[in-house]
Amino acid sequence: MEGIDGMGIRAAVAGASGYAGGELLRILAGHPEFEIGALTAGANAGTELGALQPHLRPLADRVLAETTPEALSGHDVVFLALPHGRSGPLAEQLGDDVLVVDCGADFRLHDAADWEGFYGSPHAGTWPYGLPELPGRREELRGTRRIAVPGCYPTVATLALFPAFAAGLVEPDVVVVAASGTSGAGKSPKTHLLGSEVMGSASAYGVGGVHRHTPEITQNLGAVAGEPVTVSFTPTLVPMSRGILATCTAKVGPGVDAAAVRRAYESAFDGEPFVWLLPEGRWPATAMTLGSNAALVQVVLDERAGRLVAVAAIDNLTKGTAGGAVQSANLALGLPEDLGLTTIGVSP
Amino acid sequence: MEGIDGMGIRAAVAGASGYAGGELLRILAGHPEFEIGALTAGANAGTELGALQPHLRPLADRVLAETTPEALSGHDVVFLALPHGRSGPLAEQLGDDVLVVDCGADFRLHDAADWEGFYGSPHAGTWPYGLPELPGRREELRGTRRIAVPGCYPTVATLALFPAFAAGLVEPDVVVVAASGTSGAGKSPKTHLLGSEVMGSASAYGVGGVHRHTPEITQNLGAVAGEPVTVSFTPTLVPMSRGILATCTAKVGPGVDAAAVRRAYESAFDGEPFVWLLPEGRWPATAMTLGSNAALVQVVLDERAGRLVAVAAIDNLTKGTAGGAVQSANLALGLPEDLGLTTIGVSP
Amino acid sequence: MEGIDGMGIRAAVAGASGYAGGELLRILAGHPEFEIGALTAGANAGTELGALQPHLRPLADRVLAETTPEALSGHDVVFLALPHGRSGPLAEQLGDDVLVVDCGADFRLHDAADWEGFYGSPHAGTWPYGLPELPGRREELRGTRRIAVPGCYPTVATLALFPAFAAGLVEPDVVVVAASGTSGAGKSPKTHLLGSEVMGSASAYGVGGVHRHTPEITQNLGAVAGEPVTVSFTPTLVPMSRGILATCTAKVGPGVDAAAVRRAYESAFDGEPFVWLLPEGRWPATAMTLGSNAALVQVVLDERAGRLVAVAAIDNLTKGTAGGAVQSANLALGLPEDLGLTTIGVSP
Amino acid sequence: MEGIDGMGIRAAVAGASGYAGGELLRILAGHPEFEIGALTAGANAGTELGALQPHLRPLADRVLAETTPEALSGHDVVFLALPHGRSGPLAEQLGDDVLVVDCGADFRLHDAADWEGFYGSPHAGTWPYGLPELPGRREELRGTRRIAVPGCYPTVATLALFPAFAAGLVEPDVVVVAASGTSGAGKSPKTHLLGSEVMGSASAYGVGGVHRHTPEITQNLGAVAGEPVTVSFTPTLVPMSRGILATCTAKVGPGVDAAAVRRAYESAFDGEPFVWLLPEGRWPATAMTLGSNAALVQVVLDERAGRLVAVAAIDNLTKGTAGGAVQSANLALGLPEDLGLTTIGVSP
Repeated sequence: MEGIDGMGIRAAVAGASGYAGGELLRILAGHPEFEIGALTAGANAGTELGALQPHLRPLADRVLAETTPEALSGHDVVFLALPHGRSGPLAEQLGDDVLVVDCGADFRLHDAADWEGFYGSPHAGTWPYGLPELPGRREELRGTRRIAVPGCYPTVATLALFPAFAAGLVEPDVVVVAASGTSGAGKSPKTHLLGSEVMGSASAYGVGGVHRHTPEITQNLGAVAGEPVTVSFTPTLVPMSRGILATCTAKVGPGVDAAAVRRAYESAFDGEPFVWLLPEGRWPATAMTLGSNAALVQVVLDERAGRLVAVAAIDNLTKGTAGGAVQSANLALGLPEDLGLTTIGVSP
Repeated sequence: MEGIDGMGIRAAVAGASGYAGGELLRILAGHPEFEIGALTAGANAGTELGALQPHLRPLADRVLAETTPEALSGHDVVFLALPHGRSGPLAEQLGDDVLVVDCGADFRLHDAADWEGFYGSPHAGTWPYGLPELPGRREELRGTRRIAVPGCYPTVATLALFPAFAAGLVEPDVVVVAASGTSGAGKSPKTHLLGSEVMGSASAYGVGGVHRHTPEITQNLGAVAGEPVTVSFTPTLVPMSRGILATCTAKVGPGVDAAAVRRAYESAFDGEPFVWLLPEGRWPATAMTLGSNAALVQVVLDERAGRLVAVAAIDNLTKGTAGGAVQSANLALGLPEDLGLTTIGVSP
Repeated sequence: MEGIDGMGIRAAVAGASGYAGGELLRILAGHPEFEIGALTAGANAGTELGALQPHLRPLADRVLAETTPEALSGHDVVFLALPHGRSGPLAEQLGDDVLVVDCGADFRLHDAADWEGFYGSPHAGTWPYGLPELPGRREELRGTRRIAVPGCYPTVATLALFPAFAAGLVEPDVVVVAASGTSGAGKSPKTHLLGSEVMGSASAYGVGGVHRHTPEITQNLGAVAGEPVTVSFTPTLVPMSRGILATCTAKVGPGVDAAAVRRAYESAFDGEPFVWLLPEGRWPATAMTLGSNAALVQVVLDERAGRLVAVAAIDNLTKGTAGGAVQSANLALGLPEDLGLTTIGVSP
Repeated sequence: MEGIDGMGIRAAVAGASGYAGGELLRILAGHPEFEIGALTAGANAGTELGALQPHLRPLADRVLAETTPEALSGHDVVFLALPHGRSGPLAEQLGDDVLVVDCGADFRLHDAADWEGFYGSPHAGTWPYGLPELPGRREELRGTRRIAVPGCYPTVATLALFPAFAAGLVEPDVVVVAASGTSGAGKSPKTHLLGSEVMGSASAYGVGGVHRHTPEITQNLGAVAGEPVTVSFTPTLVPMSRGILATCTAKVGPGVDAAAVRRAYESAFDGEPFVWLLPEGRWPATAMTLGSNAALVQVVLDERAGRLVAVAAIDNLTKGTAGGAVQSANLALGLPEDLGLTTIGVSP
């Protein structure tokens, strides 16, 4: 990685005109080790970035290239923020020594049948999973040259629930209901995403286990539980641009008490730079995490219902996508895990 | 009810300066049979309504009286939109022939221990429960002179789930996660309810079964199930003024299939004037119900998770409070149940 | 108008899938004299209304026809909610005895050069202007069979300023800055109208006198002033679905005092069913008018700046479009002007 | 300033529990030269910051001291984010060599009569004015030990209009209409600032020249114009937490053309690190500036109306308060003006 000793680590961003791409650029522009190289896009190739991402003034004059292996060559790191199914072929042409960080879904799932069932195309493979907080993953990420960045919902749901499985506290049957801001649905204009439609409205979609993030949550929790976990996942859309609040619950096993629950979560997040288990009695709000890489978690035992209830909040574009991508890239490159990232949100 | 043949049914509203009171007035002003009589308030007594509820122009010059039995006497119907614990003593002094419709919690619960545990005061009693859609309730409401209007969360959660229990489809262990607009938290100024705090933020509160609406949901579903039902209820606050979206799930029993689920819901809501079981594939959004008395419901069977997932949306101030109150009052007074109410929302 | 004595006045709505069309249907469905006939659309022809306008439950099963003269024939009233330039050819084929109410711009302007300059197409003509509050207009509307419904910005700006011109208080050089909700921009999906883009953002557009509503405001104020009026109009977009707040100012002439200003506005709006000159010291907020046909106005004299400042608020889809259309249609049909309309807003 | 060579410049923040204080801390925490010292508050003294400003995780354990001269002593810089009238007495006890940066209004105005007329208390004095972009101010700020941070509205209105006066293009009679997010109104709970009230609503307040920022705008523009400038200023509140969009207009003098206007603005902002004169045809949106110190400006000549129209957007808490404060403090301390500040916003 010659860049480290020279002029910085050269990073390209494919898909620079979308929301994930814009957030990657916001973070990379403030990162002390990265130098922003090629910016590429699909239909927006040829346009100045300033016309598409006017919040990124220092990069306003950059012209977007077309997303091709050639445009992306010559970089130390390539961040892919592309529609599903586009990362695989591209990655193959990028060289094994280039760090490829895929913010798409292509390489997240282990099970080819799951992939095909939910995405309807051949499975591209599986890359190291960019959720360092998940047991065993941080080690896997150090020095890797391929990273599958988790989905936004799986990030927050997994952080909320894996400590309970790690400590053997709950039954392998969970319910996750998550409220998401609209940026998770992307920047393509669709009627149901118009401001007039979403302001003042909460709505459900992808109900009944059909959302593509379901198998990813299942995979994460199952790996920690050491047994299959059944996941009922319902995403909802609420009137804000950013943020996901996930409410997650599972039945506790016999004899589990509040102290054990608290202990499990304290232990799971001890020393984690980006997960904040809130003091008891305080609950996460997505606004606390705006633009930050923090995940806020709280957990409680509902004794009457015999359930553990964990709630977690993230910024879907930061910890849920671009911040998580940079966190894992830092690990892969041997940099401090939190370099260029913050736990301070923009609030109110 | 002499008013019916004369100048209209005289209705008083106690608590006219709050959000529930304002919504009652909005509906009553458009109701063909009601005549709006005394308007009372606590700290706002002596103020013109126009300074407090400027959206109610035709009533702008009305001066609020203090909430006393005297001020409320001489009416056919008294709607109470008061803080918890205030309805009981007042109602005793209103005469048995007056229809008293309590939008507060005082008379909702059957179990005195539940009341005392969740509200911390002596139980005032139990009145007929104003959710006509719930099996057996409509009959109880006809001709009654006392109505306990359901809480907003219990309204939407009960409508989402009771058909499943009525048909014996699910296990008595449910999870309800609801996203609510801020008007449900009332009009008293509190820092965490400031626009600066709530815009752009989704947050959880009352997690772990401690929200006061929990025993009410439990009571409703248990009555239909014929056995105790365990309820895990998590309310969340999202950035909109009105609306609740409830996501509700329970394990299905053996052999339950999608057709049985659909059939149960179609049967439960057949002929209901205000509940709309959406066509398959469409999902509720709260904006569809703004200002209307409609409840939108959809349900699906998640075969992988072995769960029924029902989602329902209402306007918390209309069907969830004031509209529900008028619907039940109509029944009590022998009027058409839907008189003065609409299923058309203000959208977008 | 045989319908009045029979089954109601048969009304068709062309453009029923858009926001203006939806609002027309919401109002017509609650109007005691109208019967809703044909609903037509362009690209959405063949679709059930329930899939497009799910807030209109009673009309959910109606299938949209294609917008043709044939589909619209056989009605007493035809409301047109179509893109600019489409109303003229259609209206010609609808029969002179049919009341045609055009919510588009085609017939608003008197000056063909203005039309061609701002709209870039040949001028279709001029119809009676549907702003009954404007001096002389109410009389013109009675019995007419053609109505040009004003634009939303001209409605609110004209109401805010015409009393000052009617009383000769101000110089013919005005500044209007208006904040609008996003529904005014319509339902066609565009990136800059996405919820993710508009939430949390106020932005200007059409700055420098280029917005098409500029000549309409100029025309209205000039007619009252009896001399040409110069208008600087800047529209801005703010994060809400509905509502326009217009801040309007002009230099006062010599000797004009606060009492004269107040008197002028009281006189202009005396007896008006839908304009509410607020008590002194209270200022309009768009939320007061949500779903209502009210226009709230306040005015003050800034003695230091030598300026009258008037602020007005409306719901752009109601008083600013569909409500204004029905108000004028009532006049044309000899019905009470306020029939089927309300001054009560949905709030909070 | 010994701190520069040692452990950083020690900065205290008085008023750390409010919105301005929180934003100061967000910026200071990321500033490479500042070390955060005492945090003080009024009623919130004794509370952990994490309970009040949960978005500032690294400072969550800090306990707020009471705002006294003693608590604030021993620092190189003291930022005051206090209610009006509180800064004067405090500043006197802080030592002449301490840099005192007042985010309040106390020391902004030159004219004692203006102060007394608008604030109703004795005038405390006048400090160097922290708007480096204003001609002559940057020099005045270098090395100063007292800074009066401009108000949020004056910041944006002055940036939008001073170039026109500097180039002698316009008459001294301006209209400013500004749309602000709610955070400008502070964190004290008031009914009209509740989320339920502000979401979905645009409203005017302080109309008619009575807003306290009026004389500050007048002072700034008059100083550049070299003659008295008449200002008509109307602030409005729109449904977002942060951001101000100001629409500003004045009549142009004879012979002024579009090229002269463009040239004047290009010249005024040439080399400015934080003001971005947008490319022609693009218009400011507040969301572009979220959390950034950027001010976006656009200007156009409306030839028909004979007016220059300038529109500017800032984040009221950043460039409008805390970012502007740090920018000026950088100058006072001999640091690079843009140190610790960014022109990149958090978007969408």
